[in-house]
Amino acid sequence: MLDFETKIFDKETLTIGDRTESIVRGGRHLFDRLPAAFEGIHQLGVIGWGPQGSAQAQNLRDSLGSAVRRVTVGLRTDSASWHAAIDAGFTPEDGTLGEMYDVIRGSDMVVLLISDGAMAESYQDIFAALQPGTTLGLSHGFLLGHLELMGDRFPDDIDVVAVCPKGMGASVRALYLQGKEVNGAGINASFAVHQNVTGRAVERVLGWSVALGAPYTFQTTLRSEYLSDLSGERGILAGGLHGIVESLYRHFGDLGLSDEDAFRHSAESLTGPISRVISQEGMIGVYKRLSAAGQRRFAEGYSASYPLGFELIHEIYDEIQSGNELRSVVLANRRLARFPLGKIDQAGMWRVGEQVRAERVAEQIPLDPFTAGVFIGVMMAQIDALIEYGHPYSEIANESVIEAVDSLNPYMHARGIAYLVDNCSITARIGARKWAPRFDYALTQRAYPALGDVDPALIADFEQHVIHDVLRVCAELRPSVDIFVE
Amino acid sequence: MLDFETKIFDKETLTIGDRTESIVRGGRHLFDRLPAAFEGIHQLGVIGWGPQGSAQAQNLRDSLGSAVRRVTVGLRTDSASWHAAIDAGFTPEDGTLGEMYDVIRGSDMVVLLISDGAMAESYQDIFAALQPGTTLGLSHGFLLGHLELMGDRFPDDIDVVAVCPKGMGASVRALYLQGKEVNGAGINASFAVHQNVTGRAVERVLGWSVALGAPYTFQTTLRSEYLSDLSGERGILAGGLHGIVESLYRHFGDLGLSDEDAFRHSAESLTGPISRVISQEGMIGVYKRLSAAGQRRFAEGYSASYPLGFELIHEIYDEIQSGNELRSVVLANRRLARFPLGKIDQAGMWRVGEQVRAERVAEQIPLDPFTAGVFIGVMMAQIDALIEYGHPYSEIANESVIEAVDSLNPYMHARGIAYLVDNCSITARIGARKWAPRFDYALTQRAYPALGDVDPALIADFEQHVIHDVLRVCAELRPSVDIFVE
Repeated sequence: MLDFETKIFDKETLTIGDRTESIVRGGRHLFDRLPAAFEGIHQLGVIGWGPQGSAQAQNLRDSLGSAVRRVTVGLRTDSASWHAAIDAGFTPEDGTLGEMYDVIRGSDMVVLLISDGAMAESYQDIFAALQPGTTLGLSHGFLLGHLELMGDRFPDDIDVVAVCPKGMGASVRALYLQGKEVNGAGINASFAVHQNVTGRAVERVLGWSVALGAPYTFQTTLRSEYLSDLSGERGILAGGLHGIVESLYRHFGDLGLSDEDAFRHSAESLTGPISRVISQEGMIGVYKRLSAAGQRRFAEGYSASYPLGFELIHEIYDEIQSGNELRSVVLANRRLARFPLGKIDQAGMWRVGEQVRAERVAEQIPLDPFTAGVFIGVMMAQIDALIEYGHPYSEIANESVIEAVDSLNPYMHARGIAYLVDNCSITARIGARKWAPRFDYALTQRAYPALGDVDPALIADFEQHVIHDVLRVCAELRPSVDIFVE
Repeated sequence: MLDFETKIFDKETLTIGDRTESIVRGGRHLFDRLPAAFEGIHQLGVIGWGPQGSAQAQNLRDSLGSAVRRVTVGLRTDSASWHAAIDAGFTPEDGTLGEMYDVIRGSDMVVLLISDGAMAESYQDIFAALQPGTTLGLSHGFLLGHLELMGDRFPDDIDVVAVCPKGMGASVRALYLQGKEVNGAGINASFAVHQNVTGRAVERVLGWSVALGAPYTFQTTLRSEYLSDLSGERGILAGGLHGIVESLYRHFGDLGLSDEDAFRHSAESLTGPISRVISQEGMIGVYKRLSAAGQRRFAEGYSASYPLGFELIHEIYDEIQSGNELRSVVLANRRLARFPLGKIDQAGMWRVGEQVRAERVAEQIPLDPFTAGVFIGVMMAQIDALIEYGHPYSEIANESVIEAVDSLNPYMHARGIAYLVDNCSITARIGARKWAPRFDYALTQRAYPALGDVDPALIADFEQHVIHDVLRVCAELRPSVDIFVE
């Protein structure tokens, strides 16, 4: 049973569904506690300038003020991001930008946000550069999984902690900036304390999460994090979503809709009104809004997609748990020099989407009940699989629902699903390429040909599911601001 | 450098492309040498009654006559195939059908043809049942790969050999029966000698291959076999083919063809005239037959598909070599009790195909140059990847071309591609489900949107490729009979 103690922040124990889970609520009013949380940290090094690196470095600098002597970004000297970091105000002159190994050696706390592939290649050098007593921070459990595969381990003489924001880097920064106006706006995060040699790891990790702007922070383990994070990303958050939308677009085309209307009833409906209603009223809220005929269409879609989604999420989880998925990511990274990742945005469907978004009238986007049923069916399948595997409810709700409807889908609604699939982290891009077509084929070849049947037991399970109560509790912790993406 | 010595059969050394490879030609006129090859074998146990098990048990019984005391089939007593084996003339009464472990214990040579999943679950019990000095025969290197993953090994006191027919079990039996009329008809096979404690392993393995009806038998290693066999099956033989055809069907539909015509220009063209011309005149023969405009269309398809095929075959090979693919098969097998493999044959395209085949006029099936270019582009990509990985030419030609055009594609032409995808070995079905959609997405999202360009260097490489000479030599060894599938 996970639990933690903090003297600096306020632990709350929530009754969430049929369990209790301990969390820490965030907010700008807590920033005056950060000096205590970061006591002993002179230099906080943020390594990497990807979406998470750039967002976290800026949020930490803005929040910490004089709580630490400086927040310093560490990059390879030949990094293409060097100038972007300078543009954001990190400079070699004032010691806030430096060569990554110099920064690692000179920091008391190192937040390591380089790509998974780079982590796999460089972790031994990084470990060698860490001073004894350093607090090593991760935002993803990947490195633990990779060490397990290599039969290797973290150095004994450091803290190992993680804060894992349940949203993309762009949202972590965008909502933090919005949070300057509305206290508490931000992206929820999980935290894990894997090694605590200093005895200060819990306060530091909670301080880090509060400094990022997380409205609430819940506990997990590094292992539970990477299992659920990779499952979610390969499932409903990106891979599954991409495949679902491709299959629905063709399905609506087969039913006689124009390309534009097929796009509106699939992608537009999903990243727009369906996600917005889930965010505000939960999955069950979508269902309740529908007419009797709409509920019937929803139930057909749900009955068709849930069993196949459940099967695929189990396959994904097996692949992650066995180490296959991580090995596969490392191998794919090694192939990149010879075979760069291709883009998908020139395919017919995504060209149509560009056109449809350009002419968008938000009020006219349909909330298609069939699309909602198919999407929520796979979402519920992921939730049930993660419950079966024993993950905390907070983790499940964030990894399956909240990250989708409050971070990723609004972003995709503005920029396009293909944009996300072409521009997310390398690990996520590899995962989307691998799993999206599997969801598409499963739905196209097996679910849609058998459409029409409704499984009443499945729908009853959905209506009575504990997750609705979990989401209701999470919604109370949610700041009253939606992400805004230009 | 692979080589072998035989006193019983006739080794020939062929100049094949820029290399030499040693092979043994088969034929019914060699059956009188089988008693010498199988000297010391009283009972030959064939374990399993899948497509390979049933085909090999019958061919071995028919060929061996009194060369061994008996060919005995071993099955689990609750096997659903028990009655099928009896119908084929194997009975408990005369000692030619028995419980699998009894048969293993009582045989001097054991040909193990159970599914890969069953092999992974049961190999320790099987090894315990083998008498010292037994010759263990496999038709696939899977077990070696699995033992390597488990950190385990074959017992020291047995021979370990393999004969791996380069065609599906149904073809191994069908062509053998046709071979009763036309000497030498059958499916080529590779052989490997992994352990030779009796000193008789080479003669036994060659005898086994000749008894199956292999027109020619070439040498490989167990490891080289499973790497190329799984790559081929996940690539051009099944997974790649399935994905290519799905993408082409939609592509032709997008160009305005009716469903029926789209099916004719994709699936029908590929498993019909394109495969037949490759079989008779090689891949280059297809190209030479085309008009200038046709060659241009071929070149467009080839230029689009080759690079993506090459990338995907490298990914497939990486996944196999790292152990991921085998681990994935074992995990998938464990999920089957809860999630049975679904069928694909109800999807729109395959329903159309059923109709098109019912109305087929063979002479009217088009040899579509674009389809030929896309298919042969991926075929050549597989060939180049396997050459890069150091496989013997005979293995590459059989695993990439001959097995396709002389065994699988004619079978699919008669029964449908979906039928094969739904009815091949569990390992191949898992592989097709995993890789077909990857080929489809790569072609649809990245190759077809960029169509129109021809890469002259790629076409020149194709025209001058050593594989054409390899296939010419292989064709000379080919019996003058085509597989006939009802």
